Amino acid sequence: MNVFSVNVGSTSLKYKVIAMPEEKVIANGKVERIGSEEADLVYQYGDEEPFKETLRGDTSYTGAIRRVSELLFSAPDHSIPGHSVAGIGFKTVHGGPVTGTVLIDENVIKAMEEYSFVAPAHNPPYIKAIGAFQEMFPETPMVAIFETGFHRTIPEYARMYSIPYQWYEKYGVRRYGFHGSSHRYIAGRTPQFLQRDSRGLRMISCHLGGSSSLCAIKDGISIDTSMGFSAQAGVPQGVRNGDLDVFALLYVMKKEGLSIEEAQKILGSQGGLKGISGIGADMRDLREAAASGDGKAKLAIDVFVYEVKKYIGAYSAALGGLDVLVFTGGIGENSSETREEICANMEYLGISLDNDRNQIRGEEGIISFNSSKVTVVVIPTNEELVLARETWSLVKEN
Amino acid sequence: MNVFSVNVGSTSLKYKVIAMPEEKVIANGKVERIGSEEADLVYQYGDEEPFKETLRGDTSYTGAIRRVSELLFSAPDHSIPGHSVAGIGFKTVHGGPVTGTVLIDENVIKAMEEYSFVAPAHNPPYIKAIGAFQEMFPETPMVAIFETGFHRTIPEYARMYSIPYQWYEKYGVRRYGFHGSSHRYIAGRTPQFLQRDSRGLRMISCHLGGSSSLCAIKDGISIDTSMGFSAQAGVPQGVRNGDLDVFALLYVMKKEGLSIEEAQKILGSQGGLKGISGIGADMRDLREAAASGDGKAKLAIDVFVYEVKKYIGAYSAALGGLDVLVFTGGIGENSSETREEICANMEYLGISLDNDRNQIRGEEGIISFNSSKVTVVVIPTNEELVLARETWSLVKEN
Repeated sequence: MNVFSVNVGSTSLKYKVIAMPEEKVIANGKVERIGSEEADLVYQYGDEEPFKETLRGDTSYTGAIRRVSELLFSAPDHSIPGHSVAGIGFKTVHGGPVTGTVLIDENVIKAMEEYSFVAPAHNPPYIKAIGAFQEMFPETPMVAIFETGFHRTIPEYARMYSIPYQWYEKYGVRRYGFHGSSHRYIAGRTPQFLQRDSRGLRMISCHLGGSSSLCAIKDGISIDTSMGFSAQAGVPQGVRNGDLDVFALLYVMKKEGLSIEEAQKILGSQGGLKGISGIGADMRDLREAAASGDGKAKLAIDVFVYEVKKYIGAYSAALGGLDVLVFTGGIGENSSETREEICANMEYLGISLDNDRNQIRGEEGIISFNSSKVTVVVIPTNEELVLARETWSLVKEN
Repeated sequence: MNVFSVNVGSTSLKYKVIAMPEEKVIANGKVERIGSEEADLVYQYGDEEPFKETLRGDTSYTGAIRRVSELLFSAPDHSIPGHSVAGIGFKTVHGGPVTGTVLIDENVIKAMEEYSFVAPAHNPPYIKAIGAFQEMFPETPMVAIFETGFHRTIPEYARMYSIPYQWYEKYGVRRYGFHGSSHRYIAGRTPQFLQRDSRGLRMISCHLGGSSSLCAIKDGISIDTSMGFSAQAGVPQGVRNGDLDVFALLYVMKKEGLSIEEAQKILGSQGGLKGISGIGADMRDLREAAASGDGKAKLAIDVFVYEVKKYIGAYSAALGGLDVLVFTGGIGENSSETREEICANMEYLGISLDNDRNQIRGEEGIISFNSSKVTVVVIPTNEELVLARETWSLVKEN
């Protein structure tokens, strides 16, 4: 049986078709610039040459998914074995108290709508895409794998903000955390790769990329994470603020006469690495600019590195020490420089990075010296596999 | 020559008269419930029995200060040697870019007015009290020792939020930090007490009390601190929120239809330990309630302890390791239980607390084992002395 793993962006759709339980990727593809006059489709069956096409006319999620299905099921040489799709799994972001891995029904969509205000870049496109898939696959179970799900194990003292208690009770204001599929993959894959028992293992997963979060993992479960009630907390994000004093926000709102909605829009699109640098969110662009002497680009990088270092320190305290430090995500997997800067002067914690090993990009590997008390590794994340496993475990009984 | 050290609360005034440069406390006193029908005055000359009195009629800052001056200068047996006051130093809180130790003029008052919105419990009463002192002592230099002053050494990458850069340029939105007089005292006194050189020494000062902040100190200067643009950040405060996702605030504002001013009021008075527990801000009350089985009181304590632990971890990373951990402030000096909980499971950092030594309250002492890699100490803070020194160093040339 096959499952779909679906990752929706604000104007994009990425998917994999994975045969379960053998976990074999049958096909993968993406559609970008959804909703524009022309959308770009890429489709790859197995290891075949990718097929590219420009979509015109209906470039909505529905149009895109219709074309994807045609390619998957109609073309004889690209047919999915058995044509059967056991379930479609979505990397949904924020459902507030609705979390974990759940069959999508009206209540799940309602919860996502409720939290769209605090996940404006994620929830609305997911709701659209899920609707489009439901149209095309009316009989197939749709599964939401919430990004908050892996963090349900965070103890109450670590998820509680020091706010009026009724805000917690009435509005569920608490630390939820995100990037759950990625941190879950890291929590499982890392001990396997290192051939160590996850019981007793104290790990920090650094998912660093267009959006970034750290997760403290003990005995394989999340005990704390740097994002909060929303994805606007923790280390600096690509275009979103990280940790920020709430009174600073109120002060600027007052000075600029910003409405709640205007403040939300600015912080959701003009903060983060882009906000500091004035250049953009991409670490490669920032590195290039900094190398050419751009002070704000250098400042953005320095702030990012420093905040990550502090979270590593904080989570080491939460874990009572550290055994394994993992880098993943676009920056974490590929930027040797960023990893080196983060690990600098961390000998007190037992981190001793091997600069030769640290040159790897996009592949699994240990990058600390053998003598390093803390083992530092790069593990490319695989969220689609987690989505497939979660989907399969929910639908296989049916 | 004598200087006044003045500490103003929202309805209180505490002061010391200190002879400089010998740093001898000549007198001290306080007036509480300022502005009420009856205010309570306590005045002590040297080691004499404290004199107590109920003020009626004019209980404003002006009335209170007039009576304080009468007691100080008029009563023959309570006269201040020479009747001379070289300067009056105020523990002013927030002047934004106006910081450090400065002679108070119109611009200083203007800056404090500008930042009253983000320091609503502190700036307005200071402005009032300074005005009243100016009335009573028109010829005496008035000195502002801003609580942000000690943190001017924090490097740019550590004071920068990941926000639109123009918010930083135009509105000075950055980490300022507070409790500067206390952290400055700790930075100076601790190496002296331990007979160690402050050069190279990596210390964390934990000022824990009605309001709390941690400060990372290297070579005697502040390199980071847990409060931010305002005192509404960092670890949980008595009645104010600590770190909080800005989108959580926007979400609640939207749901409750709160104005900027309403949000500011609630977060400034109904958050923190009081917000979580529903009981109050006093750690002793919370301990008592928790011991009687009150779950929310226990939760408030647990959140507080956990957040302090995380900041100790974070600042150890910022410092590249830790040599000395200092507890000060009402909770830090007196609560053995809180210190014990904070230091639990911190062996990875080299912290090994001696439970016998840890029983001290309100006095200087080492509370870690001699074998502990990190020396843990209690140092009662002395903000008034810092105010006197700062004031004296500014006015003595005149």
